[in-house]
Amino acid sequence: MGARPGTLTASDEAEPTEVRALRFGAEAVSDEPLDASAELPRPQGHDKLWLDVRGLRNLELLQRIGTHFRVHPLALEDVVNVPQRPKAEVYEQTHDSAKEYQYLFIFRFVAFDTSGDLAVEQLSVILGSQFVLTFLENHDDLLSPVRKRLHPDDSRLRRFGADYLAYALLDMVVDGYYPVLERIAEQLEALEDEIMERPAAPLLKKLQRHKRNLLLLRRAVWPEREALASLLRHPSPLIHEETKVFLRDVHDHIVQIADVIESYRDLVGELTNTYLSVSSNRMNEVMKLLTVMTSIFIPLTFLAGVYGMNFQNIPELKLPWAYPALLCAMVVIAVAMLIYFWRRGWIGKGPSGD
Amino acid sequence: MGARPGTLTASDEAEPTEVRALRFGAEAVSDEPLDASAELPRPQGHDKLWLDVRGLRNLELLQRIGTHFRVHPLALEDVVNVPQRPKAEVYEQTHDSAKEYQYLFIFRFVAFDTSGDLAVEQLSVILGSQFVLTFLENHDDLLSPVRKRLHPDDSRLRRFGADYLAYALLDMVVDGYYPVLERIAEQLEALEDEIMERPAAPLLKKLQRHKRNLLLLRRAVWPEREALASLLRHPSPLIHEETKVFLRDVHDHIVQIADVIESYRDLVGELTNTYLSVSSNRMNEVMKLLTVMTSIFIPLTFLAGVYGMNFQNIPELKLPWAYPALLCAMVVIAVAMLIYFWRRGWIGKGPSGD
Amino acid sequence: MGARPGTLTASDEAEPTEVRALRFGAEAVSDEPLDASAELPRPQGHDKLWLDVRGLRNLELLQRIGTHFRVHPLALEDVVNVPQRPKAEVYEQTHDSAKEYQYLFIFRFVAFDTSGDLAVEQLSVILGSQFVLTFLENHDDLLSPVRKRLHPDDSRLRRFGADYLAYALLDMVVDGYYPVLERIAEQLEALEDEIMERPAAPLLKKLQRHKRNLLLLRRAVWPEREALASLLRHPSPLIHEETKVFLRDVHDHIVQIADVIESYRDLVGELTNTYLSVSSNRMNEVMKLLTVMTSIFIPLTFLAGVYGMNFQNIPELKLPWAYPALLCAMVVIAVAMLIYFWRRGWIGKGPSGD
Amino acid sequence: MGARPGTLTASDEAEPTEVRALRFGAEAVSDEPLDASAELPRPQGHDKLWLDVRGLRNLELLQRIGTHFRVHPLALEDVVNVPQRPKAEVYEQTHDSAKEYQYLFIFRFVAFDTSGDLAVEQLSVILGSQFVLTFLENHDDLLSPVRKRLHPDDSRLRRFGADYLAYALLDMVVDGYYPVLERIAEQLEALEDEIMERPAAPLLKKLQRHKRNLLLLRRAVWPEREALASLLRHPSPLIHEETKVFLRDVHDHIVQIADVIESYRDLVGELTNTYLSVSSNRMNEVMKLLTVMTSIFIPLTFLAGVYGMNFQNIPELKLPWAYPALLCAMVVIAVAMLIYFWRRGWIGKGPSGD
Amino acid sequence: MGARPGTLTASDEAEPTEVRALRFGAEAVSDEPLDASAELPRPQGHDKLWLDVRGLRNLELLQRIGTHFRVHPLALEDVVNVPQRPKAEVYEQTHDSAKEYQYLFIFRFVAFDTSGDLAVEQLSVILGSQFVLTFLENHDDLLSPVRKRLHPDDSRLRRFGADYLAYALLDMVVDGYYPVLERIAEQLEALEDEIMERPAAPLLKKLQRHKRNLLLLRRAVWPEREALASLLRHPSPLIHEETKVFLRDVHDHIVQIADVIESYRDLVGELTNTYLSVSSNRMNEVMKLLTVMTSIFIPLTFLAGVYGMNFQNIPELKLPWAYPALLCAMVVIAVAMLIYFWRRGWIGKGPSGD
Repeated sequence: MGARPGTLTASDEAEPTEVRALRFGAEAVSDEPLDASAELPRPQGHDKLWLDVRGLRNLELLQRIGTHFRVHPLALEDVVNVPQRPKAEVYEQTHDSAKEYQYLFIFRFVAFDTSGDLAVEQLSVILGSQFVLTFLENHDDLLSPVRKRLHPDDSRLRRFGADYLAYALLDMVVDGYYPVLERIAEQLEALEDEIMERPAAPLLKKLQRHKRNLLLLRRAVWPEREALASLLRHPSPLIHEETKVFLRDVHDHIVQIADVIESYRDLVGELTNTYLSVSSNRMNEVMKLLTVMTSIFIPLTFLAGVYGMNFQNIPELKLPWAYPALLCAMVVIAVAMLIYFWRRGWIGKGPSGD
Repeated sequence: MGARPGTLTASDEAEPTEVRALRFGAEAVSDEPLDASAELPRPQGHDKLWLDVRGLRNLELLQRIGTHFRVHPLALEDVVNVPQRPKAEVYEQTHDSAKEYQYLFIFRFVAFDTSGDLAVEQLSVILGSQFVLTFLENHDDLLSPVRKRLHPDDSRLRRFGADYLAYALLDMVVDGYYPVLERIAEQLEALEDEIMERPAAPLLKKLQRHKRNLLLLRRAVWPEREALASLLRHPSPLIHEETKVFLRDVHDHIVQIADVIESYRDLVGELTNTYLSVSSNRMNEVMKLLTVMTSIFIPLTFLAGVYGMNFQNIPELKLPWAYPALLCAMVVIAVAMLIYFWRRGWIGKGPSGD
Repeated sequence: MGARPGTLTASDEAEPTEVRALRFGAEAVSDEPLDASAELPRPQGHDKLWLDVRGLRNLELLQRIGTHFRVHPLALEDVVNVPQRPKAEVYEQTHDSAKEYQYLFIFRFVAFDTSGDLAVEQLSVILGSQFVLTFLENHDDLLSPVRKRLHPDDSRLRRFGADYLAYALLDMVVDGYYPVLERIAEQLEALEDEIMERPAAPLLKKLQRHKRNLLLLRRAVWPEREALASLLRHPSPLIHEETKVFLRDVHDHIVQIADVIESYRDLVGELTNTYLSVSSNRMNEVMKLLTVMTSIFIPLTFLAGVYGMNFQNIPELKLPWAYPALLCAMVVIAVAMLIYFWRRGWIGKGPSGD
Repeated sequence: MGARPGTLTASDEAEPTEVRALRFGAEAVSDEPLDASAELPRPQGHDKLWLDVRGLRNLELLQRIGTHFRVHPLALEDVVNVPQRPKAEVYEQTHDSAKEYQYLFIFRFVAFDTSGDLAVEQLSVILGSQFVLTFLENHDDLLSPVRKRLHPDDSRLRRFGADYLAYALLDMVVDGYYPVLERIAEQLEALEDEIMERPAAPLLKKLQRHKRNLLLLRRAVWPEREALASLLRHPSPLIHEETKVFLRDVHDHIVQIADVIESYRDLVGELTNTYLSVSSNRMNEVMKLLTVMTSIFIPLTFLAGVYGMNFQNIPELKLPWAYPALLCAMVVIAVAMLIYFWRRGWIGKGPSGD
Repeated sequence: MGARPGTLTASDEAEPTEVRALRFGAEAVSDEPLDASAELPRPQGHDKLWLDVRGLRNLELLQRIGTHFRVHPLALEDVVNVPQRPKAEVYEQTHDSAKEYQYLFIFRFVAFDTSGDLAVEQLSVILGSQFVLTFLENHDDLLSPVRKRLHPDDSRLRRFGADYLAYALLDMVVDGYYPVLERIAEQLEALEDEIMERPAAPLLKKLQRHKRNLLLLRRAVWPEREALASLLRHPSPLIHEETKVFLRDVHDHIVQIADVIESYRDLVGELTNTYLSVSSNRMNEVMKLLTVMTSIFIPLTFLAGVYGMNFQNIPELKLPWAYPALLCAMVVIAVAMLIYFWRRGWIGKGPSGD
């Protein structure tokens, strides 16, 4: 609180920093790990540079990278002090009386980890005119699918500019939401069947976990949607019209994903209501049985009580056929009750099959 | 994930591809099926061309059509990789230093299938300056009503441009929502009566199916509404002012449909509440009966118990009129109870007819 | 589905068509019925023309009127194919290289019919530079109040243009919502009292009818509000600045009406909740009585049961004062229980008068 | 319905009309009642005029004032036909080929009356270039605080223009909402305590009264907020930049008030939920007691019943220690039950102090 | 009500006023307390001035400061009459025919006090071209972290203008929300576990306190978010482009905080639902036990009653094996019932382990 802006702080769980430098152009691609103490490369000629940084513990190195590529202190702070709200921002700086633009994209990888929880990882992409810097919280090589697409000679990634690489990275993040949503959909479908058949308190807990996962997704997806929408609305330096068509496509996907998330959230709410309804239905059945049992036996027990009294003068007691007659009367009463309850639909299906 | 954009993938359920080529102008109409390996036609002179593609399995042919008509790779991807979010997008490309525009419309046919489920099918329309390409997921000849309207010589479809054909197709999709909504309305009305009379758990399941169908409709209709609204707001190459008046009419219809969907969704929510209320009312009745039965017989049973005790010195037991007196007392108690409950409105209609 | 736009279809319930032609200007007014086969009049000189059409069965005549006054086919379709969403639209057409504008207003008369249901009727107003065409679904002479205002010589209707007549008609529709809302308000107030005193299932049905009526009103009022707002925002040919001040007044009224509808909808939702609360309160009372009765008599019955046992060796049974002593004990237990329940507020008012 | 616009109608409850004329400038103030038949004054030189009209019964006088100050007929109608939706509107009229502007402000005084109900009174302010007309529904001299502020010689009211007087009047209306909200806050706080301790049906009725009062406030405040916001957004003739800063302050206050109203509405909704929760908790307790009583005594009563049977051959009955043994068994059963219920937390605090 | 605007009123709890004057520039910093009666300093040369005022009781001094720095009377009123809605406003005044701008920022410090309640304190910042005035309600030296950052010679605070100091102060306020939210998150997590295990009425009270705290935060954060957003949207005198980048960062943080607050509010709502579900589940268990106990023992008690009757002619009573046979029958009935209930899952886990 009250700290100087631009202060970098490594969290306790930050992983050690590793850097890969990729240099690519229409002609050639080079791809090599970079030593922490090595000199930092620069893009040369028409070639573009991609610095792939994983793990955010080495603050000194991160600061050096920031200075080397003239990254705005606030952008660097957002990259390092994870988690940040997803965003797409442009930083305008003046160097040697020439304006220089840089984009900062913060997006979130979301995936189920092995224990079935949703894991979230921040991907920060800094896009300069000739270079792209990417920063990941962890060591996992999440960006390798894009790196592989750089190698074929006819790769669009090599012909287009650095902005197209940035697009490809964001596109990969967004594509990653689909399998997550599919898995949630499957689990919700299974939950629904369970709820209709056997409503039990642990299902509520599961529903809540889904609610939370969906909230987590939503908090990743909504700001990304806004960020892309605002990027597409305004003229943007560094990003070519051709790449914008592709970004519009990413935006379409993310809008679709946001729609799906909203409808799953609706579904979870609906399932909670179903749980309550089904469980109140069960309660109703319990109450009906109680009422049926009580209503049938209480009058009979009363009758038995009457003839258990010890008055000296109870004439019925001496009649030889009184006992079987009473038993018959009791059966008649019980059957009448049963018919009444059956008619109201409290036992069996009722007359209307209800 | 991380795949190259523009990659076409046929789903396992994709049906084989069939193509019809329609050539039409003020003078004449030709309409013939096209072989998968035949050369693709081009619009000639003032005539317009409509390529009606059904089934999305033959990726090679689809790719050829895309290349032949210079469809943007992302547009073609959206056409093939169903389902996509409905949209209306313009693609601007430069060929031989001349700007060329194409529109992509993605709309959704929605209809009840024979098993009573809602079936959704994507219609993609690509509108060029002289041609219209349509793509349907399945083989069903859904577009035949429009094709038939091409044949009369005074057909507005033949006098107006390709944009008017695109309008006619979208209009047909939107008109198709009305019968679906009418059927849902009828079913909801029937459900409401059932709920008021016999609330039962399976009705909840039916309500949920309606909820889901309405959601499905909504997810088709809302983006179509947005797409048309944004199309109408901006000046659009390819689409004439005269056609725009007609598109405004489609937009009006879709706004009306969206309104109706929202009010049906409200109605479903309301019916769920009604279900809960009616079912809680029934519970109330059950409880009242239980309470009435218990309250009447428990004191009587107690009295019988008292005179069933074996104390040697219970003076009442020896009185000859004690037994009938007790029976009378019991009747008085029971009647008093019944009157009390009737007054509170728990049995019969109560004094206020409530 | 897939039908040609501009196709007119008469519904089965359409009433026969009647037409009145009113010609009016600063000097004179003429008002006569028009035969279905008669030649259609035109506005002449500075006089304005009002064609008042009631009943939409005679499609041939409606088509002739449309052609005669150069009504856009889509506008005519909206007029005839009732019901349409309320709207205010401008149609621009070019005749003899001069631009000609026409407005189409679709508004909805709403009134309670004799059976207490809400009846809705569409009023379509087509406003040209010198004429006004009005179309009503039914025969009822709903527009007579405005017609009568034409007759006095100092009538503003005669001095101002055709746009002022259109305003007067819309104003009348909007004024008609007030008595409907007042009646709903009275009924809701009565319902509320009933619910607080005697919650019963039929009240839920009444609440739902109100909900539906309010929805119906809302679906009339909201689009009319939007239509007027958008009309006021944009510069509009045909509508003078002076008339706009009056339309702004109509807009104010309709905004107020929309507010009231929303607050009534809130009220209905609130009443449903009240119903549930009051009915759950009653349940509570039932349960309390059951528990009080059971809790008092079950221990007493048990005691009676104990001394009804037939063990040979129960010393108490032989004591002469045992029976009265047990009776006293029973009274003490019952009174203690009653005090306990009274203290908890389950019977009577409780110690805190709660 | 269908009446000519600008028609003035006095409601049955309209109070007799009284008028005060205040003439004020930097130099002097005059303040005198005006006879209904007297000639109406005009502002002279740099002096401003304030006509303070109370009671809306004398339509003839109101019409004369309207004509005298060239008030637009629709503005006069809004002033007289109370209640109107709060608004701020500008009327532009042309007299002698010079444009003349007038503002109409409609705001609502809200206060608790002596019976604890919210009373609402409409204040209409018509602002001309040199005069202010104010109209109140009732006789109460609500505007006297502002009138008194006119008398000191250094009063800003006298140095600034008529627009500042209009501001001062609106500011007073808005300031009046604070004490109302404070009183509601106090009552809600008291209600909350009552609900937590003794939930009873009459509290629901109180909650609903608060809901309605807040709705009433909201319907006053929201349109006023909109009206001021739109006034501040657009350039306004008659209102100086200096006065606008003050109006912005009023707008700030009204935004704050709208916020508070919303949070109170939330609170009322929350209290309804609390009521239901607390009341369902009580139900739970009732059920628990019922179950505990029944579960303990029913098995004991059954045992007593068994040994009350009259079989000739029940060996236990002859054992001398059987009766005390059974009594002991009964005590053991009862204690075991009590321990079981205590463990589940149904009686006392339970083992976990829950 | 009706008071003159700009009137300063000290609340009864206002603390005595203390003032510190800080003069700072690239070269030097001076920092000294200021006597209440001392002459007020002015910024000189390139040096900036920061007047840090704590406690709002000394209205005369506050008025003098206002006059000395030409603070607009309404701005001064907002500073003194706490609490005000957070805002960022620009005041434009003309002195010696030169335009002078001042900004007023009102933000809210929020922190948990020692008793666990949320304490809110208003920070008002007035930003002039060369000076910053800060006003705090209480004596606590909340601004010291920023003051300390002034002392190092390379401090950005000293190189940048007064606007950067204002930014640093607002940034500190916003940073202060994070620990508050973290503490709320921890408490909510603990509450959730308690609710799942032991739902009890006091938990509802805790939930409501959280709801209220979140509302309080929301009412601080939302207007601050709006204020910053509108500041960033419009060109602002006094605030340099470089500082705006930093303010955008504060805006990002506050948007993130607003998101988190909303999701916590959702969570609280969800927990209330969970409470109701869990508590209704418990009710279900209670009812099940009641029903099981009653259903098992009521028929048995009835049988015992039958053979307790005193009819002279009950043949079974004389059979020597009748008593053990009946006991066996009773056991069979009880076991059958138990199996039935176990099957339905009412006791134990049921056959499906449910």
